[in-house]
Parts: sequence; C-alpha cells; structure tokens
Amino acid sequence: MKEWMKNVRNVTPYVAGEQPADKNIIKLNTNENPYPPAPAVRELLNGFDTDILRKYPDPDIKDLCAELAAYHGLSSDRVFCGVGSDDVISVAFLTFFAGKKKVLFPDVTYAFYPVWAQLYGIPYEEIPLKEDFRIDAADYRRENGGIIIPNPNAPTSILEGIEFVEDILKHNPSSMVMIDEAYIDFGGKSVLPLLEKYDNLLVIRTFSKSRSMAGMRIGYCMGCKEAIAAMNSIKASINSYTLSQIAISAGVLSVKDDAYFKEQCGRIVKTRDEALKTLAGLGFTGPESAANFVFVKHESLPGDYIFEELKKRRIFVRHWNKPRIADYLRITIGSDEEMKRLYEALNDIIQSERK
Amino acid sequence: MKEWMKNVRNVTPYVAGEQPADKNIIKLNTNENPYPPAPAVRELLNGFDTDILRKYPDPDIKDLCAELAAYHGLSSDRVFCGVGSDDVISVAFLTFFAGKKKVLFPDVTYAFYPVWAQLYGIPYEEIPLKEDFRIDAADYRRENGGIIIPNPNAPTSILEGIEFVEDILKHNPSSMVMIDEAYIDFGGKSVLPLLEKYDNLLVIRTFSKSRSMAGMRIGYCMGCKEAIAAMNSIKASINSYTLSQIAISAGVLSVKDDAYFKEQCGRIVKTRDEALKTLAGLGFTGPESAANFVFVKHESLPGDYIFEELKKRRIFVRHWNKPRIADYLRITIGSDEEMKRLYEALNDIIQSERK
Repeated sequence: MKEWMKNVRNVTPYVAGEQPADKNIIKLNTNENPYPPAPAVRELLNGFDTDILRKYPDPDIKDLCAELAAYHGLSSDRVFCGVGSDDVISVAFLTFFAGKKKVLFPDVTYAFYPVWAQLYGIPYEEIPLKEDFRIDAADYRRENGGIIIPNPNAPTSILEGIEFVEDILKHNPSSMVMIDEAYIDFGGKSVLPLLEKYDNLLVIRTFSKSRSMAGMRIGYCMGCKEAIAAMNSIKASINSYTLSQIAISAGVLSVKDDAYFKEQCGRIVKTRDEALKTLAGLGFTGPESAANFVFVKHESLPGDYIFEELKKRRIFVRHWNKPRIADYLRITIGSDEEMKRLYEALNDIIQSERK
Repeated sequence: MKEWMKNVRNVTPYVAGEQPADKNIIKLNTNENPYPPAPAVRELLNGFDTDILRKYPDPDIKDLCAELAAYHGLSSDRVFCGVGSDDVISVAFLTFFAGKKKVLFPDVTYAFYPVWAQLYGIPYEEIPLKEDFRIDAADYRRENGGIIIPNPNAPTSILEGIEFVEDILKHNPSSMVMIDEAYIDFGGKSVLPLLEKYDNLLVIRTFSKSRSMAGMRIGYCMGCKEAIAAMNSIKASINSYTLSQIAISAGVLSVKDDAYFKEQCGRIVKTRDEALKTLAGLGFTGPESAANFVFVKHESLPGDYIFEELKKRRIFVRHWNKPRIADYLRITIGSDEEMKRLYEALNDIIQSERK
C-alpha cells in the first residue's frame, strides 16, 4: 500500500440502480417518472441567457425556498434545498445526528442510511420490520440519537398513517425525527401538518420522482426554523453554492405548474393500481403500494431468476439479494406502454418455465 | 435550548462574498469572469430536450471525466468531477485527511480550508506566509497528515513555481498534497506534469473562474487512479448523482472550445496587467498577480475605508478584517468598462480624501 493511503477513509459506498447508456432498455429500476418535467422547464432552458452562468448562483437558494414555502403554507426560513434529497439527507445526518446515542431506522429501508451513518461515524441500529413489512411505532420507544423513516417506506411501498409518525414524535422529544417523503405524492397523506406541533420533525422531499426531474438534482426538506438554520450552517461549511442557477429557476417553474404535476401523479397512481391487479393475475403478490413502484414476489419463481430473465429481455427492475426480501422485485411504474411490455415479458418468463 | 438541539453539530461556516440581487452593481468581489461561457453552452440549453431530465444523470460523470482527461492527456480514471471545486475539496478532505496528524495550509489562504477541517474533525495547523506573502516550501518539512496549498494563492494572487511544489512532494511522500489550481489558467504554469512522478499529488480545478461557469457548479481534480477511486467511494457514500445532466453536457462543450477559452483568459490577463499599472498610478501596491484578481493596498488610505467607499459607489470588492491583510483589497478583474469605472471611483475616493 502506498504510504499516503494510510490516511484514506474507509467506506462501503451505496450502490445505486444501474443507469444503462442503451436508450432501448425499459428502465423500471430507479423509480424515475415516465413523463417529462413541466413544460415551463423546457421553455426556461430553450430561452436561457447563459451570460447569467458566469456569476455564482444565489447561495441561499431564496427563490426556490420561497416558492416551496408558499406551496406548503410555511415561511421561507423553514425550507432547505439541496442537490437531490440524498444531498439533503446527507447534510441532515451531519447536522442532527452528532450525538453519541444510536440513530434508529428500519432494517428493510433505503440502503443509503447506514452508508451515511458509517461515513460520518454515527452509531446506528436497524429495527426489524414486522413480518408483514409494516413498521411498529412501539419499536421506536427506546433511547436513541435520532430517527429516520421513509413514508411510504422503500422498497416495501407501504405507507404508515399520520398517527404512526405522531406516536414516534411524542415518544422522542429529544431526537430529531426525519420522515423521508420521497414517494408521498403518489396518493399518500403527508405528515407536514405535524410540523406545527413538533419542532423535532424534518420532512424530506425530492424533485426526482413526482416532479420528473431526477436529472436536475433537486431535493428539499422542511422543519422548524432553528433546524433549517442549523442545516444551512452545515451546508455553508461544505459548499457555498450547491444548486445551479438553472436548477433553482427550473424548480420554481415546476412548483408553479401544480395542475400538470397533479395530472402526472394521477396517471402514475392509476397505472400502479392497475399494475398490482395485472401482476396478481400473473401470480405475483405484494403490499398495497402508495409509491411509484410496487414490491412483489411470485408464487413459484425466485426473485433473482425473474430479475435476470427480465434483464435478458432488456427490462431493468431492482432486486436485492438480502434476507427477507430476496424473492421480491421492486418494479417502478413506467408508462402504460412500458408496463404492457413488462407484463408480456413476465408472462413469457412464466410460460417458458412451465413448459 | 430545545432538547433535540443537543445533538446538533457545532460549526463556524464559511462566509462567501456577497451575491447582491441588484444587477447594477459592479461585482468585483467573487472572482467571477466578465465574459459569457462558450457559445456552445447556449446552443445546448436552447435546444435541450427536457425529457432527458426525468432520468437520473450518469452517476460516474463519464463523458465529462473523459473529455477533461483527453484535454489534459490523462486517462479517464484519473479525473474526479464535483459540484464546483468546493464540493471536490470537501470530498478530498473527507477522503485523504482521515489520519490523526495535523493537516497543513498557509495562514493567509482560501478561508474555507479551516472550515472543512473543523466540520470533519481534521486537526490542522496554519503555516504563516513569509513577510512578502510568499510560501516557503521549507516550512512544509514537518510531520503532517496532509497538505493543501492554492497556486496561485488566494487572496495574495502570487504564483509559486513547479520546483516549489516538487520540493513539498519530495519531502512528504506519506501525505496527500493538494494543489488548488482554481486560478492557474490566467498565465500560471500548472503542476500537472508532476502527476507522472508523484502519486500523492492531487491537482484541483474549477469551471467557475476561467470557464465563466460559476453558476453551473462544476469543479474537478486529477490524481493517480487509486486516489480518484478513493474519492469516488466517498462521493458514492454522500450523493449518488451530483452533477446534473445539463452540467455534464455543458462542461464537455466548454472544454471542446479551447480557442474561445484561451481568448477569454488572454483578455483577462491583459486587463489585469494593465490594472496593476493603473492602480500603481493611483498609489496602490501589491504583488504581481497570476490570477484573475489583484491584491493591493493604498499608500495612505486604509483598506476598510476604500472598501466601504467603493460600496457606496456600487462597486463591490473583497476585504478581510484580519491581521496582516486588513489594509489590502482583493479586486476581481472585470471587463475593461467595469475596470474603467473602478479607476474613476478610486480616483474620486482618493481626491475627496485629499481635500
């Protein structure tokens, strides 16, 4: 080993879903949106004066924070924006999980949580989901240095009710409780109203799923103003300017077009509900989904087998070779045409196996 | 204090130069470029198909790494890209400064270095510049856990020679030595050729100054492939997707138009060299600059006074109320028209004082 490598930090990085360069692949593996961003985003870019780019963007991202705050009925100083919700959560871990007690999150959840914890030296404990993949609020009544839970949870797609989150908040007044609402726009009920009652709640959102802007990199969170100020101090200790001037303006325009936003989300919800029925007809079962993906297993074929067979047919879904979920597939809801090709491929795989 | 705030991390954030919303201000305070980005960047945006944005960008930023690698005559696996050079340096600190020994950097330099060190719990020591603001390589022959030096240094604008950096590399084989070349394109000689001889060298660059793209947020660094792989692991432990698909494509186009790039840099160098002469005529002295800014003090008027008087005249420059440099101003090289208005304002300030 080279001498200087002794000072290199050791990590086990997060592994994201594949981003194949081949445009002919049906990509149902990273929960992207099948529909384009709001039309105003295209107009913005197509008329963009690049002379603006020679200057730094607004370090405080004021325009986007204000737009989001107005949209959610909050004041501007209660919104924090970052380079996708991963950036937001990374800053939140650094900001709020600086104690010595263990941070808690489910054992089957977004696999990035333990990665951030390890990177920043945060002790943590994974709390097992119940048999039916539900999260029990009672499991979070123990000493901890903070809590993070996605709602709906991923990859299970299960939404817990507001009372579930309120139970956790009530029993943990000295912990920051982060609710990652990356998938809340697909029919779920947000815990945002609880912000008025609990200052230890942080609600995290992304533009990557429901707003069709994964490629633009915008995420945000909402909390009490002391919490947002603390995050801004950490952010200003990492990178003065995160969101480009283009991302800031595009984000504002996306939020302004609420009719388009709701229409696209509605289409995905409709396709998803049909998908669960169609997949049931093919022998798949899985929880009722409140996200833009479903989490299903087949009555007879193993998860890794279907995953590989779909891949051969140029359809990418997500599969984890992990205890409890190895037979499950997480399938993003694509366009109706993409879903039709998925069903055909699954039917083909099942029929081939029966011969 | 609220209970949950006990777990909040304490930091003293970096304070960036002001970004006033008023477009009529002559902004010579954050070393931005007075000329627009390469024309192809405008063409890219104006014809951009926003449907691309619904997908995540390439997490490996392959196209831009490959373009930069080819430009600098390296292989692709020796380039790392981030959201501005601040993001790159932040990741580099986390990656390479994980030992227990003190990291070294000059006392008068980019004020963000101690901020990152404090945030990540990295011990550090600031090494005083010599009386003439030069850096003495001999001062870096002591036990350390890493070294970072900007060359040219900021805010002094002074360039040290390649032999200076080689001396440091030679005496510190077990430390990662980072040379922050944010300002190297304004006439300085890069230490890039040393990469072939020293695997503990990391050369950091930005698109924010010489490439007129501060608003797009692109920075990069070059090192041996083991060093770049280590940075990629840390990056993948923070945020899977950092650069937007727009930034990646715009970055590639900027690098491709080398004629435009060299022409704009040449214009700034010419304006800068004239500026030092004109400022000398007004009673200012300062080191010969190898950057897109000058660092000057007046023969009789204090730094904070000129700073405030310029501000009243809607011209922003940078001033630090710090030992040794309190009488200096860091003035970004603007367009010839902006510089003319600066000289007029300075003349006015000096004349008013003499009355």
